[in-house]
Amino acid sequence: MKIAVLPGDGIGTEIVAEAVKVLNVLELPLELEEAVVGGAAYEAKGHPLPDSTLQLAKDADAVLFGAVGDWKYDKLERALRPEQAILGLRKHLGLFANLRPALCYEQLTHASSLKPELVAGLDILIIRELTGDIYFGQPRGRRTAVDGHFPGAEEAFDTMRYSRPEIERIAHVAFQAARRRSKKVTSVDKANVLETFQFWKDIVTEVHAQYPDVELEHMYVDNAAMQLVKAPKKFDVVVTGNMFGDILSDEAAMLTGSIGMLPSASLDANNKGLYEPSHGSAPDIAGKGVANPLATILSAAMMLRYTLAQPEAADRIESAVRAVLAAGLRTPDIYSDGTRKVGTREMGDAVVAAI
Amino acid sequence: MKIAVLPGDGIGTEIVAEAVKVLNVLELPLELEEAVVGGAAYEAKGHPLPDSTLQLAKDADAVLFGAVGDWKYDKLERALRPEQAILGLRKHLGLFANLRPALCYEQLTHASSLKPELVAGLDILIIRELTGDIYFGQPRGRRTAVDGHFPGAEEAFDTMRYSRPEIERIAHVAFQAARRRSKKVTSVDKANVLETFQFWKDIVTEVHAQYPDVELEHMYVDNAAMQLVKAPKKFDVVVTGNMFGDILSDEAAMLTGSIGMLPSASLDANNKGLYEPSHGSAPDIAGKGVANPLATILSAAMMLRYTLAQPEAADRIESAVRAVLAAGLRTPDIYSDGTRKVGTREMGDAVVAAI
Ligand SMILES: CC(C)[C@H](C(=O)O)[C@@H](O)C(=O)O
Ligand SMILES: CC(C)[C@H](C(=O)O)[C@@H](O)C(=O)O
Repeated sequence: MKIAVLPGDGIGTEIVAEAVKVLNVLELPLELEEAVVGGAAYEAKGHPLPDSTLQLAKDADAVLFGAVGDWKYDKLERALRPEQAILGLRKHLGLFANLRPALCYEQLTHASSLKPELVAGLDILIIRELTGDIYFGQPRGRRTAVDGHFPGAEEAFDTMRYSRPEIERIAHVAFQAARRRSKKVTSVDKANVLETFQFWKDIVTEVHAQYPDVELEHMYVDNAAMQLVKAPKKFDVVVTGNMFGDILSDEAAMLTGSIGMLPSASLDANNKGLYEPSHGSAPDIAGKGVANPLATILSAAMMLRYTLAQPEAADRIESAVRAVLAAGLRTPDIYSDGTRKVGTREMGDAVVAAI
Repeated sequence: MKIAVLPGDGIGTEIVAEAVKVLNVLELPLELEEAVVGGAAYEAKGHPLPDSTLQLAKDADAVLFGAVGDWKYDKLERALRPEQAILGLRKHLGLFANLRPALCYEQLTHASSLKPELVAGLDILIIRELTGDIYFGQPRGRRTAVDGHFPGAEEAFDTMRYSRPEIERIAHVAFQAARRRSKKVTSVDKANVLETFQFWKDIVTEVHAQYPDVELEHMYVDNAAMQLVKAPKKFDVVVTGNMFGDILSDEAAMLTGSIGMLPSASLDANNKGLYEPSHGSAPDIAGKGVANPLATILSAAMMLRYTLAQPEAADRIESAVRAVLAAGLRTPDIYSDGTRKVGTREMGDAVVAAI
């Protein structure tokens, strides 16, 4: 089984190195091959997603991704900015289903902004559609307005869109995931304003007919943003479009108070996937050896579970992570009184030891 | 000064009645005229925003609005649903600047989901552009996809757009508001993905050159959704587009834990405005006399301040609201041990008495 390892920028290199260490200790027949991506790839090869990197990702069975981005690339033209690498990978690999668990670890409940009773035991799975919506819709650009409030003025525009099969397939992913969990799906839309999301709501409702054992609730995106703050534990599986999913999955992640712990999977139609931590490249702490590698290590576990069909190996990693937390080891982002502060490498080593 | 009073649906009638009582006691030369809107207007006249209601709103100096909507209208065709009234009023009155304060009252800090130290003294002003963006962009609808992932499939689409003057005028509103506050504006965009919001960011930056005394920071919408949870007090004035503003203003409102306390103003280019509570029509508690009228009463205060140039009268209302809170009166939504539970009317009467 071949894994493309794309560390990227900022803390990417450090955290991916720990996940690789963990994968290596499992003694599975994995072949890991590394390539540059993001700002690092722009520096080395003039493009954030060089052909060779994309080809490696295509050839591999799964992709382990760190993070991309740095303020220093802000002035580059958009096509060359680091985040184009992640958008390009999603598009070219057809990774339409983004699974973002928002899980509150028992030992880290206090780290949340929310009162402990509201988040203790929190376990939401946000399923974000990842290759459609306004992220990729054409046409887009700048032009002279022909109508609207200021005809004749310069304007910029984008196109939001979803086709029936795009909505159907992500709805199936959500209902199937709900079957393995507590059988409840919240579909988030803005059907009261957007044609795209009236269509979304209609089709999710249609697909639901095939899952009579799963409960379906519809919620407007503004209300979802509120209910996540008010009573996050009322959610189980949340399914939504690319744009709303971007916002809500980050909001939900932050509710846990430990975004340094949250993995993610982006899957194609055959369960091939790209796995990455939910957090970003954190250029401010890059190279200091203080980043939390656990989200990346847990992303490797998700990879073993979803794409590589090695659930026992995934379990071993996840148990090891729980064990190091129970032992009181903490990187600075999750540190609190009475625990032991460790760096990136020490945390990775501890997980390896626990395995 | 003529005020159009549009109570609407659900708790709208009850809460607006209390705000009207408060306005009447001020003994200002106000002429109040009531009209139906939303579901109530659909029932009475077959349309959520009848011509006569729109005309009254246009002729008036300001509009005091309750709330619209009820589950029972969900099956109506979109053009006849209650929320079309509010979209229609925004559009036809040119109410492009929505001011949504997220304020945490000292006595209600405990009601927040967040830990008290994170929200005590919270005072954010979210400025949402209200007549542009994907809410009103054309074209929109359903069609057969000609490209994308599934050419030939049925798809739905909407158009996101902003023109230069639309962005300029809302940016001015934000910078001017910041001058009256702590001189910091956070402009929220998604410039890394959307052409519309790269344009937004560019133009806000341009307009900022006229306000060298105000600090401007740019933030991606997903990050803003996180930072609001993590450290809401870092924000002062937040300015963003219609769609992102819909989501973030509701998230911010819920952070305070007392959405029943939050007013809002929607202003046109001449400071004419529509004033309404930030919460909805709450059909589940309608007619029970338990709704919190304070957000609507405070909306009337905003109306006096922004549109009717009666700042002393606005002050009197706001002080009276603080006084009733200090006296321990609470509607059920903000009730806690040791305070006195009152209904909608009793709360309104208490504000009148305090004035
Ligand atoms: C970097 C950016 C393009 C990306 C997105 O908006 O999808 C990021 O926010 C994410 O959620 O992975
Ligand atoms: C009812 C709906 C159309 C409206 C909106 O999305 O603007 C509401 O959510 C609001 O924020 O006033």
